Amino acid sequence: MSHELKTRLFRELESVVLIDPHTHINPLAPASKSLADILGYHYYTELAHSAGLARGKIEEPNLPPREKVRRLVEWLGPLENTIQYSWLLEMCREFFDFEDDRLTPRNWEGLYERAAAKMAAPDWEAQVLDKSRLERVFLTNDFDDPLAGFDTSRYVPCLRTDDLVFHLAKPAVRQRLEKATGFEATSATRLTAAVGRLFEHFTSHGARACAISLPPDFEPQPVTGDAVDPTLKAIASGREPSADETRTLARFVFWQLAERCAEYRLPFDLMIGVNRRVYEEGVFQGQDLFDQRTSLVQYRRLFNAFPQVTFPISVLAQTSNQELVSHSWIFPNVVTNGHWWYSNIPAYIELDCRSRLQAVPATKQIGYYSDMYKLEFALPKFRMYRRVLASVLAEDFVVGRNWSETRALELGRLVLRGNVERIFGLTG
Amino acid sequence: MSHELKTRLFRELESVVLIDPHTHINPLAPASKSLADILGYHYYTELAHSAGLARGKIEEPNLPPREKVRRLVEWLGPLENTIQYSWLLEMCREFFDFEDDRLTPRNWEGLYERAAAKMAAPDWEAQVLDKSRLERVFLTNDFDDPLAGFDTSRYVPCLRTDDLVFHLAKPAVRQRLEKATGFEATSATRLTAAVGRLFEHFTSHGARACAISLPPDFEPQPVTGDAVDPTLKAIASGREPSADETRTLARFVFWQLAERCAEYRLPFDLMIGVNRRVYEEGVFQGQDLFDQRTSLVQYRRLFNAFPQVTFPISVLAQTSNQELVSHSWIFPNVVTNGHWWYSNIPAYIELDCRSRLQAVPATKQIGYYSDMYKLEFALPKFRMYRRVLASVLAEDFVVGRNWSETRALELGRLVLRGNVERIFGLTG
Amino acid sequence: MSHELKTRLFRELESVVLIDPHTHINPLAPASKSLADILGYHYYTELAHSAGLARGKIEEPNLPPREKVRRLVEWLGPLENTIQYSWLLEMCREFFDFEDDRLTPRNWEGLYERAAAKMAAPDWEAQVLDKSRLERVFLTNDFDDPLAGFDTSRYVPCLRTDDLVFHLAKPAVRQRLEKATGFEATSATRLTAAVGRLFEHFTSHGARACAISLPPDFEPQPVTGDAVDPTLKAIASGREPSADETRTLARFVFWQLAERCAEYRLPFDLMIGVNRRVYEEGVFQGQDLFDQRTSLVQYRRLFNAFPQVTFPISVLAQTSNQELVSHSWIFPNVVTNGHWWYSNIPAYIELDCRSRLQAVPATKQIGYYSDMYKLEFALPKFRMYRRVLASVLAEDFVVGRNWSETRALELGRLVLRGNVERIFGLTG
Repeated sequence: MSHELKTRLFRELESVVLIDPHTHINPLAPASKSLADILGYHYYTELAHSAGLARGKIEEPNLPPREKVRRLVEWLGPLENTIQYSWLLEMCREFFDFEDDRLTPRNWEGLYERAAAKMAAPDWEAQVLDKSRLERVFLTNDFDDPLAGFDTSRYVPCLRTDDLVFHLAKPAVRQRLEKATGFEATSATRLTAAVGRLFEHFTSHGARACAISLPPDFEPQPVTGDAVDPTLKAIASGREPSADETRTLARFVFWQLAERCAEYRLPFDLMIGVNRRVYEEGVFQGQDLFDQRTSLVQYRRLFNAFPQVTFPISVLAQTSNQELVSHSWIFPNVVTNGHWWYSNIPAYIELDCRSRLQAVPATKQIGYYSDMYKLEFALPKFRMYRRVLASVLAEDFVVGRNWSETRALELGRLVLRGNVERIFGLTG
Repeated sequence: MSHELKTRLFRELESVVLIDPHTHINPLAPASKSLADILGYHYYTELAHSAGLARGKIEEPNLPPREKVRRLVEWLGPLENTIQYSWLLEMCREFFDFEDDRLTPRNWEGLYERAAAKMAAPDWEAQVLDKSRLERVFLTNDFDDPLAGFDTSRYVPCLRTDDLVFHLAKPAVRQRLEKATGFEATSATRLTAAVGRLFEHFTSHGARACAISLPPDFEPQPVTGDAVDPTLKAIASGREPSADETRTLARFVFWQLAERCAEYRLPFDLMIGVNRRVYEEGVFQGQDLFDQRTSLVQYRRLFNAFPQVTFPISVLAQTSNQELVSHSWIFPNVVTNGHWWYSNIPAYIELDCRSRLQAVPATKQIGYYSDMYKLEFALPKFRMYRRVLASVLAEDFVVGRNWSETRALELGRLVLRGNVERIFGLTG
Repeated sequence: MSHELKTRLFRELESVVLIDPHTHINPLAPASKSLADILGYHYYTELAHSAGLARGKIEEPNLPPREKVRRLVEWLGPLENTIQYSWLLEMCREFFDFEDDRLTPRNWEGLYERAAAKMAAPDWEAQVLDKSRLERVFLTNDFDDPLAGFDTSRYVPCLRTDDLVFHLAKPAVRQRLEKATGFEATSATRLTAAVGRLFEHFTSHGARACAISLPPDFEPQPVTGDAVDPTLKAIASGREPSADETRTLARFVFWQLAERCAEYRLPFDLMIGVNRRVYEEGVFQGQDLFDQRTSLVQYRRLFNAFPQVTFPISVLAQTSNQELVSHSWIFPNVVTNGHWWYSNIPAYIELDCRSRLQAVPATKQIGYYSDMYKLEFALPKFRMYRRVLASVLAEDFVVGRNWSETRALELGRLVLRGNVERIFGLTG
């Protein structure tokens, strides 16, 4: 009975039309062109590499997509247990009529052809969106993205700011900033003006969020312009900033972003806890890890200083989830946001989803985002989440608290979709 | 069958008459006088504030209780998913004959009247105690509490010491100490004498525990009187102590408390991990959070130095629970104590309860305390715990280890009540 | 149905013949000689001590085994809830025909006699191995172990290196090293030569792993010989090294070990997170605890520097498990290894096992090791693990992903046995 209840709730949740509030979709090429786009997702390349496939085999220059798939399929055996593999199978079944239990050196070629044929259809993107019941997709745009050539009501721009906060000392970043805004970042005043321009550009093109990923030791603080002027001058003259100067500059820029979010009424997505390039010989996008020794208490000054800014927060370490629950329970401007990366597996989603539903106001929870690079991934990833959500709604609410299924589903819909609309201002 | 088993065990556990080993009850006004006392509990005010209700609306001076309830009820919608809301409904049903599924702007007034009428009964306190099967209730008394005017065998005094350890530099605290003990805290010797007086006063009035809440970075150490004499003198002359002096003084006073606990044979309740005033604009009692980066290893010197003192320990971060399990497994004087505050939700209680029952001697576990401010809360809070306990006993012991239900219930009763009696010396 | 499914999978997993990849078995006395060998296991002595039995009663000099058992049995009552007690009962039932539900002062003597009689059989060791379906057993050998007098194909040597890394300043350790290798550790060069000799000795006697346990704050780094030469000279002349020198020396030796593991193609078992002697008055082997504030990121240099060395990693804090999962998912040379000590209880094994199976390549997971001191413990400990594994395979794979039972069992066998063979090179 409990199993049937879960299945019923899952089916209803499956019918909810989605807005995906965080992805890495390229709006000029949103869907896959071959199976290589799917198997090239870093989850597969890094797991195959972890299982034994040499990086050089995966990232060989000019590797034809077909050969790339052949090589990766050879190493899928050891990954069959992973949840990421289950996404792959689900995509192959739903989109490419795959019927086998496993993708192997024996059966991949037929699939490759079928997928290529389907993907060649002129309306493939629309087919995928339709089949996935996906209405809108948030992007992750570089700060100097022209935001042109695509429908910003379907593909919602989002200002990604890691480069500005953490890499402003790099000549390439400064040049991109100057080119995008007309301001050289040679003083706090000019940098502030440049950041203002970016917000103007983005909000005038329909951007609905500012976003950044942050290392475990980052601790935002207000910094005066005077405190960074000498550093900005030094950088402009070609001197490497010290570790101290770099940290102070990062804090200055970060605080500027928060101020602009207040001014332009943009939510500020914080994705907390990633250490970049820990495994330096890893595959592309498969080099980052984390340090669980981090705390949301590091953000107390920020949350106190910007009550008017909403901070949708993702945490990389599952051990940070309780802090996220508690901060969302206490701070009106903190909301929970999805299940990020290394926490994005059912064992952790389940615990995190349960604790959030038990202790955070229902209106302050963004249930899930796909983080995908290609549209085909929304379906299996959201489905994984919907399974967990259905199970938690069944056990904790329908059985545990005697709620009607209708009421449990209302809560599910709010978390899956309603909150995304309201928090990112998409209903207007 | 498993569901029926759990229900059977739960019903049996419900019949256990309780001693609540930690509350904030005011023994001169233990029960609620109106629904405002219940909805004014910080769990509701902070969650309503988190969901959008302005602090000024909740804490407006001279706000009549009825209007306070009206305002809070308007914001209950987003909280219906929370476990705290389920406590509210359970109280309304059990105590005030409420029969609806939700408390809304449409139906609250009738409830308000009914509650007021019931609470006006001269024996309301006794009715609540009786219905909740609550026999004794531990208090949280300021160090200068006269402990007069109530029955100390029902309301058990407990010496709360946060002010002494962390706020001794405040003139108001020093004056209260002098008034309560006759000693000015101008030297280590006088301070020690003052603390001794407090223990005499409390133990002669039936106190059964000393208690304190501690920040995540606290690390107890023995400190000589010589090391704090200059600080005490400086404070007395009006100088602000430095951060270093403050820390040393806190350690000195804390160690004094442990020594008096040994002398007066009082358990020393440690509630570890709270950061005070993190959200400064939060509602009353809704400003505190925590930092998960803390460790019970910080208490090694204390546990080694006082083998004769029992330390019932509560941890605020769920990530500290395994350390608590392991320290209780190794140190004879460390016992697990309840599920505190941000860890007091079923998702975490379940995991913590399972791990404790699997690895800590049964005699060293205090299952639960309510932490309540008004008597009505014991019923729903303990019931939440008893549901989890029944479920763990059913799955891990009756099903998992083939225990009889009788035997599983013996374990449940020990954890719920027997250990409280023995550890706090209430059986004599 | 789900219950029957789990039982079916469990029975099949029970039939897998085991290699136990980490124990503390003494190959010259692998099985117990009396019940005192079993009840003398530190899990029972420390839990009985924690519950109230004085250390002096347990460790009284010349205590006859029978009397030791009598004293411990008196304190088993409070431990009946623990999973460790369930191991005890399972051993008594399986090996000594015990039929009661509890081991008490009333019934222990008959059991003691029966056990003694069975253990006196000349083939007792073989009986235990056979009944436990245990084929090979990894040892934990001191670096100066002669590795003589036993069958190294059954009892596989393993070079344990804690003393070398953390206690090289102790005269006794240096003397043992000199005696074992012919080199005095008076310079980096000589120390390197000595370590090389140890690897030669061990690998020529069939060693299949190097192993070490590490404190939470250890952070490996390459250190030049020049940087430790003065320290080694100072130690040789009788001066105590400073804390800094000790840390640098530990890093030097540790890095040497990793280099030799590369040279001799030995996996390097890292057991991360233990603080030694936290409870100084605790019973033998019952004094150690941990600090959850540790991170695998501390090992980034090591994992990057030695891609050719496999690092089977155990973590003591359950909060470290997600880092272990993620590092094993990213680093080809990192594999998950068992459920260690304070994490070795079903509540934590279940969560850890699920997350590993969901996100780490199947070939990179060593499911379990017993950590036992006497052979009788493999049966109940592996059985506990197999129960959890069967449950996870049933729920997450057969039910959750529609796998056939056959396929789920293949995964179970790989994790239980196949990976041990391959990772430690036992198939050749």
